[in-house]
Amino acid sequence: MPNSNTVEILTIGNELLLGIRTNTHLTYLGKQLSLLGLNVQYCQVIPDDPKKIQSAIVLALTRSNLIITTGGLGPTEDDMTRESVAFALGKELIYNDTIFESITEYFSKISRGVSSIHKKQCFQIEGSTIMKNERGTAPGLFVESGSSVVALLPGPTHELIPMFQNQLVPLLKSKSFCAKEANYVQIRSCGIGESSVEELIQPIVKEQPSVEVALCVHLGVVDLRLCCPSSELEYSELMQLAEGCRELLGDHFVGFGEVSLAEVISNILRKSEQTLAVAESCTGGLMGNAFTDISGASKVFKGGVICYANDVKVLQLSVPEEILEQHGAVSGECAIAMASGAAENLSADYGLSITGFAGPEGGDANNPVGTIHIGFYSPFGVWAKSVRYIGGRLDVKARAVNAALDWMRRELIYQDKRQRRDCSI
Amino acid sequence: MPNSNTVEILTIGNELLLGIRTNTHLTYLGKQLSLLGLNVQYCQVIPDDPKKIQSAIVLALTRSNLIITTGGLGPTEDDMTRESVAFALGKELIYNDTIFESITEYFSKISRGVSSIHKKQCFQIEGSTIMKNERGTAPGLFVESGSSVVALLPGPTHELIPMFQNQLVPLLKSKSFCAKEANYVQIRSCGIGESSVEELIQPIVKEQPSVEVALCVHLGVVDLRLCCPSSELEYSELMQLAEGCRELLGDHFVGFGEVSLAEVISNILRKSEQTLAVAESCTGGLMGNAFTDISGASKVFKGGVICYANDVKVLQLSVPEEILEQHGAVSGECAIAMASGAAENLSADYGLSITGFAGPEGGDANNPVGTIHIGFYSPFGVWAKSVRYIGGRLDVKARAVNAALDWMRRELIYQDKRQRRDCSI
Repeated sequence: MPNSNTVEILTIGNELLLGIRTNTHLTYLGKQLSLLGLNVQYCQVIPDDPKKIQSAIVLALTRSNLIITTGGLGPTEDDMTRESVAFALGKELIYNDTIFESITEYFSKISRGVSSIHKKQCFQIEGSTIMKNERGTAPGLFVESGSSVVALLPGPTHELIPMFQNQLVPLLKSKSFCAKEANYVQIRSCGIGESSVEELIQPIVKEQPSVEVALCVHLGVVDLRLCCPSSELEYSELMQLAEGCRELLGDHFVGFGEVSLAEVISNILRKSEQTLAVAESCTGGLMGNAFTDISGASKVFKGGVICYANDVKVLQLSVPEEILEQHGAVSGECAIAMASGAAENLSADYGLSITGFAGPEGGDANNPVGTIHIGFYSPFGVWAKSVRYIGGRLDVKARAVNAALDWMRRELIYQDKRQRRDCSI
Repeated sequence: MPNSNTVEILTIGNELLLGIRTNTHLTYLGKQLSLLGLNVQYCQVIPDDPKKIQSAIVLALTRSNLIITTGGLGPTEDDMTRESVAFALGKELIYNDTIFESITEYFSKISRGVSSIHKKQCFQIEGSTIMKNERGTAPGLFVESGSSVVALLPGPTHELIPMFQNQLVPLLKSKSFCAKEANYVQIRSCGIGESSVEELIQPIVKEQPSVEVALCVHLGVVDLRLCCPSSELEYSELMQLAEGCRELLGDHFVGFGEVSLAEVISNILRKSEQTLAVAESCTGGLMGNAFTDISGASKVFKGGVICYANDVKVLQLSVPEEILEQHGAVSGECAIAMASGAAENLSADYGLSITGFAGPEGGDANNPVGTIHIGFYSPFGVWAKSVRYIGGRLDVKARAVNAALDWMRRELIYQDKRQRRDCSI
């Protein structure tokens, strides 16, 4: 196989072009292949149309030597990938009894009988290697054609992921497609804009012509990837550059890789054997969800209260009614009472709270739509701060959660350096 | 402009191919263009590489007459879309003072000064129409070239969406690109597999050769789109077919369009002026979040308790300690106590609860990883049911929430027909 690989992904399905489903396969495969030292250079998204799939394969064969298709292997009539790839490669489809047996076995496991429509899935492209589907009926296929390889993966995510990891990756390794180590490092930062990140790291990256920089901003979080497509630098050298970037980023540095703000907080709290409870009004559980996305969160995360209604704030969080009357539910005073109530009523060391107007309705002169108050209760004191976001309801919610988590992250890092402060806002 | 349009989207950015960012622009544009009667036929995802962008534009011009690019209009060095499109079209870039004034105005609004790197964004392709950016610095461009149109949109979602809606759509309408009405209907179902949906609706769709069917399954929800690309059928006729499908789907029918399970529940409760509270253990706020994604949720959603730790179940939800000791936190008995506690302690008419092992750790012989118990408290009684899912932690959480919401939806629909039952599991 060649020293330099061009990787192309063909994601197939009308639903992707019609906006019914988001192309998360590209995200998953792009990331996993990068970790194997294979950078995706092209992706075509095409409908379940045999002619269009054929043209896409023909185009891909002119420029790429590893082509991965997703989708269109199902039993229904619109699934045409297998047939179209065979045609584009000038290869026959051959009925394979072993596939039928695997499908029958799969159905017996989930106590169902095999239906005749699944016969369609028992055909393989001549000369192909079959990739077993652990979670469904459609087998994958791995076809070599000249100096290129075409791998066909199923569309459902829970079928695609195990097949990619357990079947395709070993095949790629056996064909020497994969590099020994990853050729990129990812650095996550928060609380700083994309162009500021780029400016800050200039002293390091401008000296490295072989390093490509990719930046991605998402709801207040900026991901920076240093990639060396030529593999001129080894992973350890990339990591050294990344350490330099970390220093330049200072407090804005969240972590390497995909670490979430909630994970950083959890790791700090776990070390000090401390716990956290949350109180959420407009974010409605999104912040708690961030912590429970982490396996083993129970060591630090006690839970929280979604206090959408004001009486829930009073009943579950002991927010004084006077605060609601005098300052309103969307106020720094209420955020502080919520954070304190969460920590005290749920027996946690820390409390983090969010109250605000996520929009599009609500808001008043002092607190227009998009105004968010965050409360933070700690063994050192309790504070509130406010932020304001422009955007849709879901964006405002997600940004509010990131702002709260980032604040707590910074406070935890600095709490040793800071003096105990009194409860004031 | 032509009667039949081929629409192609070019999403540009290394981060999309490296798996740092998911291509949600295709989802958004695919859906919005469908609503305008424009079906996207191709999408190319390409890196910020001038040569690759040029090739992609040249290919697109051979087969599509409406080409929309996203990304690569920013001020940083890797942003090369404007330059590459100009080159591919054989057009010049011209400096435009008005753009510089707009950028200066934008920065003064957010109390920042304009930086020299933004000069790059002040160039427009000759003969292009400028599309104002309400939420950022990069203006969009609308270029006519022969019988084709190329529209350049910025990458950040919060900039792209208002520019698409407020600038590009009016331009497309003025050039007669858009049909008068949508050419598809979307039907959402839940609690039934993709192939069963396809079988159920066969009697209707097999009579309609001009109708294309696209199916998409997502965490237990199946979306079915009936589309008439030839516009042979009018919207009202498609809607009639959709009504037929609704009848065939029976209780599995959730709604037309993108309506969420939480919205269906909220609408029913709003009519009867009843309220809901939730209690979540392993889903950690994800169910509450589904309700607070709905603007105006406060009319029916009182809030909830994220009871990750057992003492929070006892303290906030009055779950009897005996239940935790005898049956454990992951049990139907605990789910019932949680649902009852949520409704009673938060003064709601209904309570919905989830407890389970989302994995990858935890679980025991009776309740392996993926086991979820759902509790439902209503004025008619309180019940629990259990479900089991295979998959990663985040998938199990999302499926558990959908299962709970779908159960409540069905119970609300049928509660009138059912007799009052006693508290039993």
